[in-house]
Amino acid sequence: MDKPSVEFWFDFASTYSYLSVYRIEQIAREHGITIRWKPFLLGPIFNSQGWDTSPFNIYKAKGNYMWRDITRLSEKYQIPFKRPSQFPRNGLLAARIALAYEQEGWVSNFIRAVFIANFVEDKDISHEEVLSSILNSFGLDADQIITYAKTQENKDKLREQSQLAADKAIFGAPSFVIGNEIFWGNDRLEDAFLWYKKL
Amino acid sequence: MDKPSVEFWFDFASTYSYLSVYRIEQIAREHGITIRWKPFLLGPIFNSQGWDTSPFNIYKAKGNYMWRDITRLSEKYQIPFKRPSQFPRNGLLAARIALAYEQEGWVSNFIRAVFIANFVEDKDISHEEVLSSILNSFGLDADQIITYAKTQENKDKLREQSQLAADKAIFGAPSFVIGNEIFWGNDRLEDAFLWYKKL
Repeated sequence: MDKPSVEFWFDFASTYSYLSVYRIEQIAREHGITIRWKPFLLGPIFNSQGWDTSPFNIYKAKGNYMWRDITRLSEKYQIPFKRPSQFPRNGLLAARIALAYEQEGWVSNFIRAVFIANFVEDKDISHEEVLSSILNSFGLDADQIITYAKTQENKDKLREQSQLAADKAIFGAPSFVIGNEIFWGNDRLEDAFLWYKKL
Repeated sequence: MDKPSVEFWFDFASTYSYLSVYRIEQIAREHGITIRWKPFLLGPIFNSQGWDTSPFNIYKAKGNYMWRDITRLSEKYQIPFKRPSQFPRNGLLAARIALAYEQEGWVSNFIRAVFIANFVEDKDISHEEVLSSILNSFGLDADQIITYAKTQENKDKLREQSQLAADKAIFGAPSFVIGNEIFWGNDRLEDAFLWYKKL
């Protein structure tokens, strides 16, 4: 019987997803485990809980804490971090691209570059030029990729992916999913891989 | 200049506080650091965020996840755990006792015993008999202790302590506080002590 994969469910706007994106590939390599990248949108899940923005904006004390926590953790992990001037940024187009090309070898580099643009370079990842520039820097045809990412077929695919997240009872990002087992948060990254190893 | 203490802010109803109560004393001993126990009530803080019960009851997916997470973590830490038949339980009297006698050598044993009653033995810690029984088992005069804990002076003291938590921008439990630095959640227990060591 095949083992399930380690699925990495993330949202491009999510601060703690950024920390995990930076860390997950090395940990996966150490364990010899392949990651399945699962971009999705937290927005509809937050909406269904009655939130019209990130809970970090709604609950001020928690939000202030989160920024301090992310700063401390990025120092601990020795990960670059600069608080974005806008939060949360709209990761819709980036998620459509990452999902449309999930099978491509370059997708992990693209995902990492978008997170760095948002959380290190303070670039607005909702702008098509920011994403084009990343894709072009990889020697890819940005126009072709973005045109396909915006097709109705692919828009529907992302909507279905985000609904699948909700159906799996995912309520935040990052979430590491192994079969029916959900590990929520950057703090559970190591535990998720250890769980996978035990299977 | 004296270092600040490691303050352990907790609520007797809090599941993740239970995990930390079980772990903190050994970690503090290893570091040679004294803990200052800070019982408080999360209820007023939750109320000020518009919640009339634990967010784990309000947000179902997050609540279901929490119980699974606590079960997995208690196995990882090899800590006994049984999901209480009632959640959250009212820890008001227990908090009043723990605060009134915060300077006593027995208070850490009392705190641990109350958490075990709630999260291992599934006893209703809002019942005075449950707390009396714990105090009596330590050879203490439960009646005298509880009578003092219920005085207006001590009720006010707990109200002030809970307000102080809010003033410090504490929004959840457990929280480890070192000067102005807050570390929230059982996941940050080790980081809090490492932070203290660096001062």
